[in-house]
Amino acid sequence: MTTHRFTPSTLHNTLGSHAPALAIASGDTVIAATADAHGVDFRGEKIGDRPNPMTGPFFIEGAEPGDALLIAIRDIRMTRATGWTFDVLSPNVVDPNAVLRLRERRRVEWLIDAAAGRVRLAEPPPALANWSVAVEPMIGCFGVAPDLCQAISTATSGRHGGNMDYRGFKAGVEVMFPVSVPGALFFLGDVHAQQCDGEIVGTGIETAAEVTFTARVLKGQKIGWPRGLNETEIFTIGNARPLDQALQHATTEMLDWLVADYGLDEVAASHVMGQCVRYDVANVFNPAYSVVCRVARAALP
Amino acid sequence: MTTHRFTPSTLHNTLGSHAPALAIASGDTVIAATADAHGVDFRGEKIGDRPNPMTGPFFIEGAEPGDALLIAIRDIRMTRATGWTFDVLSPNVVDPNAVLRLRERRRVEWLIDAAAGRVRLAEPPPALANWSVAVEPMIGCFGVAPDLCQAISTATSGRHGGNMDYRGFKAGVEVMFPVSVPGALFFLGDVHAQQCDGEIVGTGIETAAEVTFTARVLKGQKIGWPRGLNETEIFTIGNARPLDQALQHATTEMLDWLVADYGLDEVAASHVMGQCVRYDVANVFNPAYSVVCRVARAALP
Amino acid sequence: MTTHRFTPSTLHNTLGSHAPALAIASGDTVIAATADAHGVDFRGEKIGDRPNPMTGPFFIEGAEPGDALLIAIRDIRMTRATGWTFDVLSPNVVDPNAVLRLRERRRVEWLIDAAAGRVRLAEPPPALANWSVAVEPMIGCFGVAPDLCQAISTATSGRHGGNMDYRGFKAGVEVMFPVSVPGALFFLGDVHAQQCDGEIVGTGIETAAEVTFTARVLKGQKIGWPRGLNETEIFTIGNARPLDQALQHATTEMLDWLVADYGLDEVAASHVMGQCVRYDVANVFNPAYSVVCRVARAALP
Amino acid sequence: MTTHRFTPSTLHNTLGSHAPALAIASGDTVIAATADAHGVDFRGEKIGDRPNPMTGPFFIEGAEPGDALLIAIRDIRMTRATGWTFDVLSPNVVDPNAVLRLRERRRVEWLIDAAAGRVRLAEPPPALANWSVAVEPMIGCFGVAPDLCQAISTATSGRHGGNMDYRGFKAGVEVMFPVSVPGALFFLGDVHAQQCDGEIVGTGIETAAEVTFTARVLKGQKIGWPRGLNETEIFTIGNARPLDQALQHATTEMLDWLVADYGLDEVAASHVMGQCVRYDVANVFNPAYSVVCRVARAALP
Repeated sequence: MTTHRFTPSTLHNTLGSHAPALAIASGDTVIAATADAHGVDFRGEKIGDRPNPMTGPFFIEGAEPGDALLIAIRDIRMTRATGWTFDVLSPNVVDPNAVLRLRERRRVEWLIDAAAGRVRLAEPPPALANWSVAVEPMIGCFGVAPDLCQAISTATSGRHGGNMDYRGFKAGVEVMFPVSVPGALFFLGDVHAQQCDGEIVGTGIETAAEVTFTARVLKGQKIGWPRGLNETEIFTIGNARPLDQALQHATTEMLDWLVADYGLDEVAASHVMGQCVRYDVANVFNPAYSVVCRVARAALP
Repeated sequence: MTTHRFTPSTLHNTLGSHAPALAIASGDTVIAATADAHGVDFRGEKIGDRPNPMTGPFFIEGAEPGDALLIAIRDIRMTRATGWTFDVLSPNVVDPNAVLRLRERRRVEWLIDAAAGRVRLAEPPPALANWSVAVEPMIGCFGVAPDLCQAISTATSGRHGGNMDYRGFKAGVEVMFPVSVPGALFFLGDVHAQQCDGEIVGTGIETAAEVTFTARVLKGQKIGWPRGLNETEIFTIGNARPLDQALQHATTEMLDWLVADYGLDEVAASHVMGQCVRYDVANVFNPAYSVVCRVARAALP
Repeated sequence: MTTHRFTPSTLHNTLGSHAPALAIASGDTVIAATADAHGVDFRGEKIGDRPNPMTGPFFIEGAEPGDALLIAIRDIRMTRATGWTFDVLSPNVVDPNAVLRLRERRRVEWLIDAAAGRVRLAEPPPALANWSVAVEPMIGCFGVAPDLCQAISTATSGRHGGNMDYRGFKAGVEVMFPVSVPGALFFLGDVHAQQCDGEIVGTGIETAAEVTFTARVLKGQKIGWPRGLNETEIFTIGNARPLDQALQHATTEMLDWLVADYGLDEVAASHVMGQCVRYDVANVFNPAYSVVCRVARAALP
Repeated sequence: MTTHRFTPSTLHNTLGSHAPALAIASGDTVIAATADAHGVDFRGEKIGDRPNPMTGPFFIEGAEPGDALLIAIRDIRMTRATGWTFDVLSPNVVDPNAVLRLRERRRVEWLIDAAAGRVRLAEPPPALANWSVAVEPMIGCFGVAPDLCQAISTATSGRHGGNMDYRGFKAGVEVMFPVSVPGALFFLGDVHAQQCDGEIVGTGIETAAEVTFTARVLKGQKIGWPRGLNETEIFTIGNARPLDQALQHATTEMLDWLVADYGLDEVAASHVMGQCVRYDVANVFNPAYSVVCRVARAALP
């Protein structure tokens, strides 16, 4: 149960079968530095390129195709006092006829006051002069190497994880990814100081961070899509377009989970899901949208 | 500010320009009986046909096209100790390749214990023997007569409201509808004892009820889609397929609201929405899906 | 087998259970005048309002719910030398990020030379100075009264037909609609001098016309969606959003047809469809999109 | 202008920056053997794995990011007298409620009579005893290495091409791909003896082939999506889900083409496209659907 401290020298713009940056044992903890979505680190230095350059990959010993990799997010510490977003809604989230009311997105800066737990615009428009939002850091992009020796852009996501941009990927949460290659090859980056549902301006508040996580191999745990657990809920996440299909993936994965691990058949699982499911629209901006299907632990028999 | 008690004799399967069942003044309150989605009332008698037969319409004096009608939901009291749902997930919410694992939906009964605030299956499968869920009654279908003298099935929804099946339409919430005809012509029905996000088995727990609401005309308040307010949030709802388009409608309506009533331009509104929006998938089963866009009052400048 | 000549006095903006304008026998032929999509007739007089005001309804004696109504389009004669379109692509048919390159649509006039069979812009931009397209008149919007006593806007479409805007609805084609009310109540209008696939500027070349059709009741012919036949093909049309769902409706209806009328089971029908289907994107602009599924008669066993 | 004959030893399941199998000059012609979608070659030997193992990559000298690679398909000769398909419609192309009428897809064999130009089922159901379809060979999957050093599964498609499964990719057609890496790295395979629109049973008639193509570098020709030319038309192809988005990509790319190369501004291009566009649904089965936007050369000013 070693704890490693890791600062990347090379960042990756794909999740793929790249040479491991660090090999760790199942159960080890890593404190890993991440750059922001445009590759700028805690010092303000550009150490990688867009999109979402990744720290890693971490080779987890013993992980084999057919296993799951569990990542327990222990802490997300922002390492820069500034973040950035785009400043107008993405054209794909408003009615096509309303797009002409918008203009091209511009990048704007935010000031992060980690001690006070608030973040505010560096140069707010007058109407937002005294406006700020709570800090709630989360991981925008993380996952494992996909199957078929694919290398998939960190702009998008899939069964292997990737750029899911879900505000629920925060400290205290455990996330499972399906392992497709020996060692799993885990990547992470793209931390946001906070983000709405849907990531509808195309970004969270993008910043540099230090993420502490523990990796554990779940031998023989076959899963189809990323799954998660927090104190009160279990959840699944599906990544696709349109939202309908992302929701289908997440719902099917939850059905599979309840049937395999909770002693329910399709009818009993349908009753539980049919009365208790909650959905989150994680992102509705990236090439693949992400929908989360949640069930409260208290609702499970 | 009269309070009317209304029990319907004729129920309607469309929201349209039907003859008013009762004319009321703006500010009046109505205690209205509703049948369940298959037309069965509190005594178990069939008084209407599927889909979702409606109580009403109520003619609200003074309402004209270009106004909004505000409905304050004061109370939803279930008037029957039984409800029903379907028993397997709808095929459209799982992966197409997973549908063959399901079978045709069957109708099953539930027992509502209003005093205890719990509802449970009348004949649960063994795995759910002691399983119940909390009662949280909501209105499945309500709205006003649409424009162009249309009469639109209560199976679906649109700008005029209709079968939105949103669990957030519960006591304590205020909802606005765009008025398209003189008197607005308000309809309601299809109460659920409780429902998940998405209505993914195709129903909530369908039952008969008595709904207490106050109707108020908001003169000259132009809105494009239904809007709502509760203690902590304002919200908009968009109805369309796919979910992406329902979300676009809700998001555009929220943008319109923030710009018109909160002193924000498109950029300031984008900042607020871009960091603070929450989405709910109200229903992903009906001919039109419904997505809700919520903003916390505390996040508004 | 009477032939009626009909000029409308009142036009309708919904397909619904309106009072019949003319009752005809099964097998009768009607020569009916239609106004353009904005209600302007052959003289240039405004006799109806947008959207797509309809001529009719025609009550076809003997038609009952559960039958089909077959409309044989015998001739479409344009009765005005002018038509109009919008002048830029609809924002929903280009990438959301490309919408800002467009501007609001404006209406422009076209000159129809029926004798020469060509239509050209009245005031073409220089690059199109000598450019014209072939006249190929078609019916944009036609259909029957829907079920549940609904009255549905002529801007959209459904199982009952409506604003499908398919360039294949031209002279020589037979179209079937599912009958939902006694007499079927057939409406028509919105003729286009010609149109591309998808109706991607939001209109065909909109004009007034005189349509000659023969109506015949097909007793007991149950169909789910409109069907058509021309010299070389049979086809079905599905209306919904997104295109995927419109395509699912059309494909399922073709499967039903081949199984019911061509002696094929699901596997044999899948082989025929799997090697021989052609799809047309009829419209990708209206509230419901329309997709056509075609099979060559020569490919049918 | 050399002609190379190439038989692959290693096949690839991704389009990516793999080591070149053969370097050729711009203008050279290659006669390349391809295996079927499951990796079986002309002798019936399995030389690769699913999905769609690719022959190549071919390094075209002089190709650089920012150029386009033009592939002229000169001939597609089937090299096996058998092909195969699946035998029932894919569940995603019928209504979700109709899926329960289908069953799991099974693989069935076809006999290809290249001389007679017909292909028929090896063991037809009785209803199809004398039924056959015309041979019309096409390339299912081809394209170039994508950007960001991605390696993308040959099951799907994107801006780089890939598994587009368009029946229009046949002999006599020229196709352009956007070059993202030096040498372009062109791959091909997955030939079908024939295919319907949409590939709605999940396959064309899959077989081994020998494809003759000429590759030419178009220096400085920037394109966003694959483009094509045949004797009578120019066309673009967009790859995404849902169909709506694939259509948006193809339509935007056509707009770009008309504006850049045909002297039209956005309005003039809208007029031409608005009256003359044809769409094909190339595939509605793969992870990315493909829609083709066609304009007749005769319709261009």
